[in-house]
Amino acid sequence: MSPLLKEIRHNPMLWLLAFVPVVFGAARLRPAAHTLLFVLSVLAIVPLATLLSHATESVAAKTGDAAGGLLNATLGNLTELVIALTALRAGEYMLVKASIAGAIVTNTLFMLGASFLLGGLKHHVQEYNRVTARVQAGLLFLATVALLVPSAIAAADSAEKAAIVQDLSLGLSVLLIGAYALGMLFSLKTHKEFFASAEHADDGEAPWPMGLALATLAGVTVLVALVSEIFVESVQKAAETFGMSQAFVGFIVVALVGGAAEMASAFSGARKDRLDLSVGIALGSASQIALFVAPVLVLLSYVIGPTPMSLQLWPGAVVMMLFATLTASMVTNSGRSAWFVGVLLLMVYSVFAMTLYLLPPS
Amino acid sequence: MSPLLKEIRHNPMLWLLAFVPVVFGAARLRPAAHTLLFVLSVLAIVPLATLLSHATESVAAKTGDAAGGLLNATLGNLTELVIALTALRAGEYMLVKASIAGAIVTNTLFMLGASFLLGGLKHHVQEYNRVTARVQAGLLFLATVALLVPSAIAAADSAEKAAIVQDLSLGLSVLLIGAYALGMLFSLKTHKEFFASAEHADDGEAPWPMGLALATLAGVTVLVALVSEIFVESVQKAAETFGMSQAFVGFIVVALVGGAAEMASAFSGARKDRLDLSVGIALGSASQIALFVAPVLVLLSYVIGPTPMSLQLWPGAVVMMLFATLTASMVTNSGRSAWFVGVLLLMVYSVFAMTLYLLPPS
Amino acid sequence: MSPLLKEIRHNPMLWLLAFVPVVFGAARLRPAAHTLLFVLSVLAIVPLATLLSHATESVAAKTGDAAGGLLNATLGNLTELVIALTALRAGEYMLVKASIAGAIVTNTLFMLGASFLLGGLKHHVQEYNRVTARVQAGLLFLATVALLVPSAIAAADSAEKAAIVQDLSLGLSVLLIGAYALGMLFSLKTHKEFFASAEHADDGEAPWPMGLALATLAGVTVLVALVSEIFVESVQKAAETFGMSQAFVGFIVVALVGGAAEMASAFSGARKDRLDLSVGIALGSASQIALFVAPVLVLLSYVIGPTPMSLQLWPGAVVMMLFATLTASMVTNSGRSAWFVGVLLLMVYSVFAMTLYLLPPS
Repeated sequence: MSPLLKEIRHNPMLWLLAFVPVVFGAARLRPAAHTLLFVLSVLAIVPLATLLSHATESVAAKTGDAAGGLLNATLGNLTELVIALTALRAGEYMLVKASIAGAIVTNTLFMLGASFLLGGLKHHVQEYNRVTARVQAGLLFLATVALLVPSAIAAADSAEKAAIVQDLSLGLSVLLIGAYALGMLFSLKTHKEFFASAEHADDGEAPWPMGLALATLAGVTVLVALVSEIFVESVQKAAETFGMSQAFVGFIVVALVGGAAEMASAFSGARKDRLDLSVGIALGSASQIALFVAPVLVLLSYVIGPTPMSLQLWPGAVVMMLFATLTASMVTNSGRSAWFVGVLLLMVYSVFAMTLYLLPPS
Repeated sequence: MSPLLKEIRHNPMLWLLAFVPVVFGAARLRPAAHTLLFVLSVLAIVPLATLLSHATESVAAKTGDAAGGLLNATLGNLTELVIALTALRAGEYMLVKASIAGAIVTNTLFMLGASFLLGGLKHHVQEYNRVTARVQAGLLFLATVALLVPSAIAAADSAEKAAIVQDLSLGLSVLLIGAYALGMLFSLKTHKEFFASAEHADDGEAPWPMGLALATLAGVTVLVALVSEIFVESVQKAAETFGMSQAFVGFIVVALVGGAAEMASAFSGARKDRLDLSVGIALGSASQIALFVAPVLVLLSYVIGPTPMSLQLWPGAVVMMLFATLTASMVTNSGRSAWFVGVLLLMVYSVFAMTLYLLPPS
Repeated sequence: MSPLLKEIRHNPMLWLLAFVPVVFGAARLRPAAHTLLFVLSVLAIVPLATLLSHATESVAAKTGDAAGGLLNATLGNLTELVIALTALRAGEYMLVKASIAGAIVTNTLFMLGASFLLGGLKHHVQEYNRVTARVQAGLLFLATVALLVPSAIAAADSAEKAAIVQDLSLGLSVLLIGAYALGMLFSLKTHKEFFASAEHADDGEAPWPMGLALATLAGVTVLVALVSEIFVESVQKAAETFGMSQAFVGFIVVALVGGAAEMASAFSGARKDRLDLSVGIALGSASQIALFVAPVLVLLSYVIGPTPMSLQLWPGAVVMMLFATLTASMVTNSGRSAWFVGVLLLMVYSVFAMTLYLLPPS
């Protein structure tokens, strides 16, 4: 148990783990205090996501390149997946869809922008591997386009034929998962040199022993699932109290909370002038949401949801996702960044957040 | 006649020529068997398109650089043009428009994607001339944007003022043809070095004698026109039988059939690691549709169509064309490709096809 | 007074200054001759804008790098700002918004396109600093996206909640001006090497003495304001006479008139094979409109306008701005240009102009 404790002592973010028992206690004692439960569950999920990410990396480091990469690629967005699954089971499809769209936008605008800004405040100009970034941005753009086709076309044609959109979403999900499987073959086997620098660096930290890592992985996933249930139950009422729409909560709050661990890695990479790492995490994670998390949720909605869920998003989300991935492509195109590029990315993100706050989808 | 026969023996695709008499016979004997006629006419057009393409290249090779290039650039999409003209004369404007949009999307997604995939299965990473590809992708993007302006603006403003859109289409067609003429001056005269590698390579095949080439060109064009008539007549009924919308037929079937010959060249280039050739054919052919075929059809609709045809497309087609050309720009930006890039392009194409199949334009 | 007179004798465009007294005389004698007043005021604004631009550069040259750059960046679009302010005070919000959108589109398509064409007619292929152009195009794209968010989302969601869009516009304006201030810190202080080549070259002309420059700056601004009043009053009636919509006037006429001075610099740079200068002026000026002029007008509408003005544009303008900035990004991506690229940019601009002329926003 010593590496886990050492890690907790070493990493201030993990001190938030104290909120995990607190949120369970509060849920039992004050089940109606939605705002309190919402805040506590957010504070509890962040350190759990960090632990989950470390455990995944430790298992990945032990199991060797291909299997480890596979694990990392599949479990890298485990927190987002567990939260979305809980919302899915509760039938909160708006929250699920908003969190998918939000995760892509947050990764490409906020995570990338803050990495550029934090890195740029320390280094005058930062260069990164342009070729790799272009391949990754191209993949992300294609993944997002595929994901958006039903919404874009349905929106453009203002067709409300729900049944057709549902069939389309199902077919698309199968295609996306197929592309994801081929993508893993590509990035882990045939062309791993393109993705080499995006490996989660261990920075001299010794990986945990296998048993501890697996136990942490299992235990923490259960904890995230339990806290997520409190989070999803409380979020709607709490959002009303704060004057936030469900779209805002899913798009901004869930995406920031769920991606906290990856952001910590990306920001630390940027500060160390290893921007390849930051760009790789941001674009890779966004691609994974589009190609894996979103279709898995659609397929699972047939099993665990009250009704099947489609991939149709509200038009504002389509616009935001397109702008975000186009922006990511434009910005990573030059292979160099400076602090102001980060400022502009964060500004576009703020504009989106402000819009969602003020203009909830009807 | 020997080079033509040798070519036919050599190239298995030309064995399909046997279907040309079959389709004429079937049209006479079973004029109501629409599905059969549809399938037979598709099988007959593919080898005719291949012959047409070889004849054009042979004439071009004999007449020297500038005139040959001019010929190639004008007749490169002759099959598409003849099919569209037949549909135009029959007043099937939906089919005409769908085949214009579909040819651009099919060239940029399917032809490029399959080239990347087929080339990538044989070669680890393929590099091509990035500068040339960027110039070509830039031209294609501008050509498509110009073509889309009336639809995009009409759609955005939901203005249904048919007369204005018609005037706009007419003015735009004149502008596009002017740009096309200047573009030939550019690519054949002042800056031909940019387009050099995109020449249809003859790969050691001796070009046909001039007389044979010209006779083939004339004769096959007539045959294509005759088969197109059967195709256009049967396609609507056959589509109903297969449960396909007219949009799907124009967008996917006509585009694949009409472009079969160019695809064969592009794929063979990719297998030989001559991706410059494949990218040049795909992007050049798409530009030609936008700058030449589309406006010529609008102008001819005043002469041979029942009523003038506008350039206004249905919104879904606008979205698909924009996505396709943006994608082509993004993807050719890096100047290198691997098999998975091809998979993703094909996936986006499949998504479009699936959408058109399930969600016909209202 | 001699440098000013020498400049006037030297520069034929300044001979148009003769129209300044003429327009004032005509406004007094024939206040109802709207078409005449419109033409005269256009002819008077063009030389005034040129003088204003020279005076700004002279003051900037004297005050040293940082302050001079600040001045140039703030007053570079002074003519556009003064015209828009006059229209704002008169409550002509459609004209104001059209001139904002039009200035961005005109700078990125017409100014850039004509520079490429004029330069390309003299030089076979022109190269310019690709890295700088990409950074500038990236900034422009982000600035435009931020500006467009309210319109794009409102359009997509077809929400007509005027009050919310107004709040959003106000918040966005504050964000944009903040980003603009940081952008000046970036381009004048921390990373000025990226923008070095875009300095307005004085080409051996001695800058004017400080007193003369300041007096010209003040005097000419007043003259522009006075002429603008006649222009804004007459434009609506004159437009009707010419069959032009207000959108067309704002988008095309005001943008061309207001940007005349910058265009002269950009075109002369292109002829001298200094395309970095032309690209820098075109993209920089467009960014400045989006990040500075537009939000300043929104904020000032609270003080001097009859009612607050929002940033919501009509959907056609959104489409055009997006196409224009995407195009600028694509086209400057390769770092080289030839005459045909200019032709295509001008063609897209003509298509926009034709569309606005034929299809006025409802």
